[in-house]
Order: sequence, then structure tokens, then C-alpha cells
Amino acid sequence: MPRPALWTAISDSLTGDIATGRYGPGDKLPTEADLSARFGVNRHTVRRALQHMAENGLVNARRGAGVFVAACPTEYPIGQRVRFHRNLRAAGRVPGRELLMSDTRSADREEAQALRIAPGDPVLAYETIATADGEPIALGEGVFPAARLPGMPEALQAHSSVTAALAACGVADYTRASTRVTAHLATPTQARRLRLPDGAPLLRTTGVNVDPSGQPIEYGITWFAGDRVTLTLEQ
Amino acid sequence: MPRPALWTAISDSLTGDIATGRYGPGDKLPTEADLSARFGVNRHTVRRALQHMAENGLVNARRGAGVFVAACPTEYPIGQRVRFHRNLRAAGRVPGRELLMSDTRSADREEAQALRIAPGDPVLAYETIATADGEPIALGEGVFPAARLPGMPEALQAHSSVTAALAACGVADYTRASTRVTAHLATPTQARRLRLPDGAPLLRTTGVNVDPSGQPIEYGITWFAGDRVTLTLEQ
Repeated sequence: MPRPALWTAISDSLTGDIATGRYGPGDKLPTEADLSARFGVNRHTVRRALQHMAENGLVNARRGAGVFVAACPTEYPIGQRVRFHRNLRAAGRVPGRELLMSDTRSADREEAQALRIAPGDPVLAYETIATADGEPIALGEGVFPAARLPGMPEALQAHSSVTAALAACGVADYTRASTRVTAHLATPTQARRLRLPDGAPLLRTTGVNVDPSGQPIEYGITWFAGDRVTLTLEQ
Repeated sequence: MPRPALWTAISDSLTGDIATGRYGPGDKLPTEADLSARFGVNRHTVRRALQHMAENGLVNARRGAGVFVAACPTEYPIGQRVRFHRNLRAAGRVPGRELLMSDTRSADREEAQALRIAPGDPVLAYETIATADGEPIALGEGVFPAARLPGMPEALQAHSSVTAALAACGVADYTRASTRVTAHLATPTQARRLRLPDGAPLLRTTGVNVDPSGQPIEYGITWFAGDRVTLTLEQ
């Protein structure tokens, strides 16, 4: 028989308190001393339970301030078709996207390689900020091959959805050819735009979208607020 | 015609310097003033080029210290079969994995749900540290359903590869049923084990592996050092 792991019972009990709404997102949990008294165990056991919950993303420990219930992150599928508006609606959130800038310029080497054009060829570059229920969750930056999508500057202004803008330019469908995921600390500009503290963790995805003939039509980088989004991989 | 973007030429030139080894991983780039002089442009243009390179993960800006060439991260595919040793060898790295602990205990609710067993059923829990060319790149924590894999405690001690340990217990193949990816800051313990600064960004994956009949045989969490690993999704 396995040893009874007391901390798992405490972790389960506190997880249940969060699930039933006794403690909501952003709420501070009772102190270790209070939890020790409530469960009749020593502080080490409480700490082990809280550590386990933190590792599972349920709570965040802020040094000197206490342990707080994590916000419920938006689940964001990275599948064959990555669609911001559809993903957000499927997660029960109201999607919003604001175009911060768009500009036609020359492709750098990396962009050219991803889009299979020549370095220096024109690309339409854009920057967006995406929101869920009004809260910023991601910064986007992407380039389209300008020669292939001549109507895109106007379409991007007219539609908040990239999918709708591409459809207006004759690209009725597109799929994700590849995605790479890394973790970074928010720069001061990113933190300000996402309303996060400086140095908050960000998930960064880089992806290439291709049209049905396999031609790259977008190379994009998205920075997701790490505690507001969970990427889910369809396998 | 697109406006000539001077900063892309500077970014390309510095990227070329890194590719050819003029600046190696960990090297400090010249100051903004030096780069302004070298390229004959103003500092704003240099800053835009460096910002673009930082966003692409090529360099890291450390406040007050300068801009440094990023280490070349290990590419780690998250596909249908996630295999640590095979992934590392495919990336040209020497894989290493050390078992920090293993212990049979009761499953908590989340583990029980992932493994489709009852809460309180016994699980074999383990913790590992994984290295690439001797450098720590990831911390792993997982649970196996103990009743289904009675020989696993000994197999895990005997094999540094989970795949080999599972094979020794009669599980010849397993596939990844689902993966979730989030970003977090390293706790002091995680930072020490991974030889990273406190608060460094980590990529956290949670995944369920299933045997050929679809039975869950492992629920695992891995924390990857954000600047040492790039997760690549096969699509």
C-alpha cells in the first residue's frame, strides 16, 4: 500500500474550495499558519500542498505577499487551423483585436525565408493587440507577402479578423505549416501593452500559415501573457 | 515600392555576424554608439534592429549590461511520440537524465483524472533533471499508475530512459494523447536545479501518454529552461 500523502488531501481540499468559488481568481489564500491550524498539520505539509498547486498553475506565490488564486487561463488550441476569434469564442470569451500599425516594408532574411520570397521583397507588416473579455492576452506581429496579396493593406484595416481580411483577398482557407514555442520575459513595452508587470513570463509562438496550394501567406509571432493563456496541442 | 527599412539591413548584417561566428553565444554585442558609428546610422535605427533581433530570440538585452548573443536553443519536437533521448540526439546534443526521487503515494484528483484511476489509488511519482551536453535544460515530474505497472519502481532505477523503463514493464510503445503549454517564472528551487537566475522564464508542458490500447500510462509535467529549449510542433 502507498504511504498516505497528507499533502494531497490538503491540495485536493483547497482545489475544491477554488472549484466551488470559496476562493476566486486573484483572492489571497489563508496564511500557512492559518491553513496549518485549519487542517491540523504542520507547515511543511501545507507548504508541500501549496507548492503542488503552484506547479499545477492553480495558485501563484508572490514573495512576501502570500499565495493567490490564479486567473483561469484561456485555452488556446494550436491545431491545423489557428483562428483567434474562433479559439476565443470556443473558450467562452469575447474576442477583440486592435490593429496597432500596418506598414509595407522590405522583408528581412528570416521573414523572406519563412515566406519563400527574396530578402528585400515587399511585405505588409502589422502589429495587433488581442483581448479576451476586454483583458489583453496577446501581442501579435506578422508579415504578409505584399506581391501575393495586393489588397491586404485595405482589408486589414477593414476587418479585425486576419481570416476575414485574407478571405477578402481571395484566400478562403489557410492552415498552419509549423509552430515553434519559446518562453521569454516581457520587455517594458510588452508589459505595458499587456498590462502585466515588467518581466512577466510570456509564451512566444512563431508560425507560418500556408494557403491550400502550400504557398506561405503569413509569417507571424504572437506573445501570449503566460498566466492568461494555456496553449493546447491537438494530437 | 516599399520604403527601404534601414534597420532590416543592420539586423541582417548582425544576424550574419552571429551565423558566421563573429559573435558567439554569450558574447556581448558592441554598444549602440559603436554600432551607430559602424553602420553610419542613428541610434534609433540600431535600437530598432536590436529589438527585432531580440524579438526573434537571437539576442537578449540585459538592462544596464548590454545586448548578448543568445545561446542556440535545443529544438524539442512535441509530436505524436515525445521521446527525450531521441529528441536530444536528433538535435545533435548528448542527452542525460538523472532521477532525483521516486516514491509510491496516493494520486491526487488531477493525477487520478489524467490517468483515469480513482483519487487515492497508488501512483509511482518521480522527479528528474534532464541535461543537454551536460547543461540542465528541463525538470520533469510524473506519475505512473502503480497497479498497472508493478515493476516500474525497479525499472525506473535501472534505466535513465522512461521509454526503456516502460518497455521493461511490457509497454513497448506509447503515444502522446494531449499536451498543454504554459509559461512561468522559475521558483528559487527550480532556478537552482536548472542553474538559472531566479525568475527566469520556463516553458511548462503537461502531457498524458497512453499505451496502444489508449490506456493512460503516464501523466507528466516538464519545465524547460525557456532560453535553452524551443518546442516545435509537428503539424
